[in-house]
Amino acid sequence: MQELIRVAVDAMGGDNAPAEIVKGAVEALKASTDLKVILVGQKEAVQQELSKYQYDASRMEVVNATEIIEMAEPPVQAIRSKKDSSIVVAMKLVKNGEADAFVGAGSTGAVLVGGQLIVGRLKGVERPPLAPLLPTEKGASLLIDCGANVDARPSHLVQFAKMGSIYMENVMGVKNPRVAIVNIGAEEEKGNALVKETFPLLKACQDINFIGSIEARDIPSGYADVIVCEAFAGNIILKLYEGVGATLISMVKKGMMSTLRSKIGALLVKPALKTTLKKFDTSQYGGAPLLGLKGLVVKTHGSSKAVEIKNSILQCVTFVEQGMNDKIKAGIQAEEMK
Amino acid sequence: MQELIRVAVDAMGGDNAPAEIVKGAVEALKASTDLKVILVGQKEAVQQELSKYQYDASRMEVVNATEIIEMAEPPVQAIRSKKDSSIVVAMKLVKNGEADAFVGAGSTGAVLVGGQLIVGRLKGVERPPLAPLLPTEKGASLLIDCGANVDARPSHLVQFAKMGSIYMENVMGVKNPRVAIVNIGAEEEKGNALVKETFPLLKACQDINFIGSIEARDIPSGYADVIVCEAFAGNIILKLYEGVGATLISMVKKGMMSTLRSKIGALLVKPALKTTLKKFDTSQYGGAPLLGLKGLVVKTHGSSKAVEIKNSILQCVTFVEQGMNDKIKAGIQAEEMK
Repeated sequence: MQELIRVAVDAMGGDNAPAEIVKGAVEALKASTDLKVILVGQKEAVQQELSKYQYDASRMEVVNATEIIEMAEPPVQAIRSKKDSSIVVAMKLVKNGEADAFVGAGSTGAVLVGGQLIVGRLKGVERPPLAPLLPTEKGASLLIDCGANVDARPSHLVQFAKMGSIYMENVMGVKNPRVAIVNIGAEEEKGNALVKETFPLLKACQDINFIGSIEARDIPSGYADVIVCEAFAGNIILKLYEGVGATLISMVKKGMMSTLRSKIGALLVKPALKTTLKKFDTSQYGGAPLLGLKGLVVKTHGSSKAVEIKNSILQCVTFVEQGMNDKIKAGIQAEEMK
Repeated sequence: MQELIRVAVDAMGGDNAPAEIVKGAVEALKASTDLKVILVGQKEAVQQELSKYQYDASRMEVVNATEIIEMAEPPVQAIRSKKDSSIVVAMKLVKNGEADAFVGAGSTGAVLVGGQLIVGRLKGVERPPLAPLLPTEKGASLLIDCGANVDARPSHLVQFAKMGSIYMENVMGVKNPRVAIVNIGAEEEKGNALVKETFPLLKACQDINFIGSIEARDIPSGYADVIVCEAFAGNIILKLYEGVGATLISMVKKGMMSTLRSKIGALLVKPALKTTLKKFDTSQYGGAPLLGLKGLVVKTHGSSKAVEIKNSILQCVTFVEQGMNDKIKAGIQAEEMK
């Protein structure tokens, strides 16, 4: 029998914990026989939710953790002081080799800090980036970094490009992924100081398929597979993507409901529109991996429902099965030896 | 008789020059009796276009300029070497007091450089920001700076906030406009080095209504009237706004055309949807002013049609009528004396 891939899930994190988290974990377990789920949280609450479902109990474990880190808590302090919180206990399982991956929908700051302080960085990785998949017209692109490291240096961006490229190739199955750096114009001489310094370094990388600059306008059309940027810019891209999408879709709906004629039309249009817009739905891709750590850490939306939790857990299975961390280590070290 | 407001228009700039530029100028002239338009460009081509229309010839002048600055030319060099280009000639009219404002749809770089080198900064203004209006659910917000000054300093952002506030109050008629700084979280301690340094300075400004940070997600809903950011971030916001909007609208259209049922629905929905989506159309607001110069310089989209040119020209009339530059000078100097 193949060894199971063990994913520690923060059962208490996010707006819909523990109900949706537990539900998503059960669904993931059903979808993959290679998987073991370790639910970490207040044991009674978790077991009460679990009692609602039928599942393979031999691949489901509950580990007790009495504390919860709230969204508004300062992350560093929370990770240091709440030793029995679900995030800290679950991450320690990864650190100690009792789990291969962590999935959590709680405080982003706490997940980022915990990832670095508890799980720890792979040797050679300067900064672990948070890398969500953005839906595009053609599929999805990896945005790296979207919020882990503000005021990054050029060498960090180069590592982001490598790690992102390895991720898209191995986890998402994109052959020779196109890597681009976010810029305010297409020409090499454009950009701020960081981009101008980083551009030639990326151009010189022989192990990535660097296609140059990408203007934000061209992200939604799927012009590049790996979109490299500093975290402040990445966070703006991710949040604005969600914001413009939500506003436009709400305006389309309002427009459709504004006259009797359009209301009838809306009924006819709805099923086809739903299928199309699903392509632009971020939840289908699960969470954002924090790359470059000794174990995999995946952060999902605070508002995650069962489907996102399930997808995030299954993403971990692919990640571990592909031996991603060995590949990342090799990629980063190859560069160092040059 | 009141004195006419004189707007010098680059007749040769943009994808649709000179036809749409001339058409827009004629339409603006009809819409405002306070206006005189000076069309600058290759005289024959301009006059040939003009001959298609009826207009008040006493308020329309054509000034010859034999050269054209192309989109791809390095801006500084182009402005310095092409002394008889439409941009340089038109901007000199502003510098010499023969025109009050400049409107152009040509190379953004050349307009920015020309604005600074030829028209010149107002005393006390450190950097002139480019400030387009973004459509939101509630109306429009001013994005300042969207591309003129990468790697700006905190003191620049403070001036952007003041100038933007004065603009929204006087040109757009927003009382006590809400000013926010683009950030990656709502709390004061979040952000990159630039934002952390700028935040307390904005908080201390008594002449603006500073409401704190704005996450990119909240821009489309109209959470703030003046959105302050450094140009690299601003450029990402502007371009992504356009990109996500265009992609989503094209996907909605495709979705509606995908089945027979939805095609029939689309016919019924179309008129109502058009009205709603028009609110999210950037062209209605005319161009982006480059604030803080001795005369007004307005940059419109390269793809501008007559309606955008007309709106941009009319924007200049309001700007000058409101005595904007005196107000900006007063606002900046009030700060300096503190």
